[in-house]
Amino acid sequence: MNPRDFEHLAAALPRHLPTEYGLEPRLEAALRQLTTHPGKLFRAVLVYEAARRFGVRRADAERLACAVEYFHVASLVLDDLPCMDDAAVRRGLPCVHRQHGEATAILASLALINRAYALIGQALAGQTRRVREEAGAVVDRSLGLAGLVGGQAWDLAFGRTERSASRVSRIAAAKTGALLSLAVLLPAALARPSAQERKALRALCVYWGQLFQIADDVRDVLATSFEAGKTTGRDRALARPNLALALGLPAAQARLARLQGQAARMLAVLARQGRGRWQHLVAAAELLAPALEFRDRARSAA
Amino acid sequence: MNPRDFEHLAAALPRHLPTEYGLEPRLEAALRQLTTHPGKLFRAVLVYEAARRFGVRRADAERLACAVEYFHVASLVLDDLPCMDDAAVRRGLPCVHRQHGEATAILASLALINRAYALIGQALAGQTRRVREEAGAVVDRSLGLAGLVGGQAWDLAFGRTERSASRVSRIAAAKTGALLSLAVLLPAALARPSAQERKALRALCVYWGQLFQIADDVRDVLATSFEAGKTTGRDRALARPNLALALGLPAAQARLARLQGQAARMLAVLARQGRGRWQHLVAAAELLAPALEFRDRARSAA
Repeated sequence: MNPRDFEHLAAALPRHLPTEYGLEPRLEAALRQLTTHPGKLFRAVLVYEAARRFGVRRADAERLACAVEYFHVASLVLDDLPCMDDAAVRRGLPCVHRQHGEATAILASLALINRAYALIGQALAGQTRRVREEAGAVVDRSLGLAGLVGGQAWDLAFGRTERSASRVSRIAAAKTGALLSLAVLLPAALARPSAQERKALRALCVYWGQLFQIADDVRDVLATSFEAGKTTGRDRALARPNLALALGLPAAQARLARLQGQAARMLAVLARQGRGRWQHLVAAAELLAPALEFRDRARSAA
Repeated sequence: MNPRDFEHLAAALPRHLPTEYGLEPRLEAALRQLTTHPGKLFRAVLVYEAARRFGVRRADAERLACAVEYFHVASLVLDDLPCMDDAAVRRGLPCVHRQHGEATAILASLALINRAYALIGQALAGQTRRVREEAGAVVDRSLGLAGLVGGQAWDLAFGRTERSASRVSRIAAAKTGALLSLAVLLPAALARPSAQERKALRALCVYWGQLFQIADDVRDVLATSFEAGKTTGRDRALARPNLALALGLPAAQARLARLQGQAARMLAVLARQGRGRWQHLVAAAELLAPALEFRDRARSAA
């Protein structure tokens, strides 16, 4: 992954929200905060590089990347609300609802979601019907009842239902996997993958989703809010699914290692089948390593 | 407008939300409540009949109609939240957040929004690029910062800003007009309107938006919650823009009459220019009359 792509997309993020309408000041401030303090832009860079690789021109690749990032940011804002995780800190800043109120936080996330759909429509307008229909189905499945929204509902219901490790994994796959699936499968629709490639891509997204989630769960248990840049310790406090709590740290650690092996095998399948065209996913897998930085700490704490 | 279209669309509404995923029970109950207690379906029927008139096949016209209704229902659910209007009753039932919790209400509205975009994408997949791009721009403008979301932010900020009648009108145009614009302009994109028709259509949406809003404002002031089927008296309590409060009832009444005249003139322009193809809007205007039922009561109270 090219560091210049990060710089480029970080600069593009605030530009794709039109501001010519005279925005209400609190909403404007919230949107400014959300688009000018990007995280690692892992998903956006992944989408951008994949789309470029599959022949999309720069401006449209940028639109797709910003769209996926807008969906991601909107999901964080909503996750942090008092009725969801009730978090106070995100990306080292007070959460949007703490600074600008809950209503503004909800409206900002809706503005991002609305804009994301518009950007995807624009970016894909010149593609074939088949590509557009596949891309639309990916967005529907990733974000809707089968993905992010449905997973979040189960996440919140967790305190009232059984807390087995298998249920935790399924929730993690639906929820965290959803935005990764979007970042991987949306640009992949442009490449018309074979049935085998499609299967490997989907499995990769499930493994990556679980990897991300376990790393996050371990971080929630071990890190302070200051270190993580967001409110930690919420899972135990709120009775939310957390694999490090459900399995214990050593078992969570073992699962992390197993998932990394499974993801590597899917990347190997894609390398064989795709003759290099999925190379950007290998680079992405290398970038995932720092996101799993709490592994070693988990090992020593365990 | 054909009453059979109402029956047909009322039956279609719950069917376009996939339920094969094993939905979390509260989310499922909320979505069932929201899709099986339709309102007047004014927007949905308008979209359906217009799309059919402009050559869209039944299944796709149904998708467009359900999409617009999903956006509308989602906006009502979010408007009713404690951090927005803090309403208790909607369509004669307890609001979704009162019955199923705030988080579920937010997730249900996101599920509807996500699904609405998917349905529009499916319905328009076979249309020309130009039609798809115009339709996408209409959705973006109607629902985003220039429309519903931006208008709602100003609505909430109203208690902190000047409360002139002109500002109230502008907020009404942005907010209530937004979903009417979507219902009128989304199917109109299929008809490739001339520049003059486009202008008349946009003006008609502004007038209708203000008509709807004034009728709603008068109802908020005069009706009981039982009569209106939703929580009333919120505007004064929450310092929200309300023309009947800003102008007084007689002046609001006079404005209502003026707007009806302006809307009628736009319909006359469309009848001349369109040679019958906007006839469904005339039928819709006749249906608007019952929605303005509190006019007479306003007159006698004033």
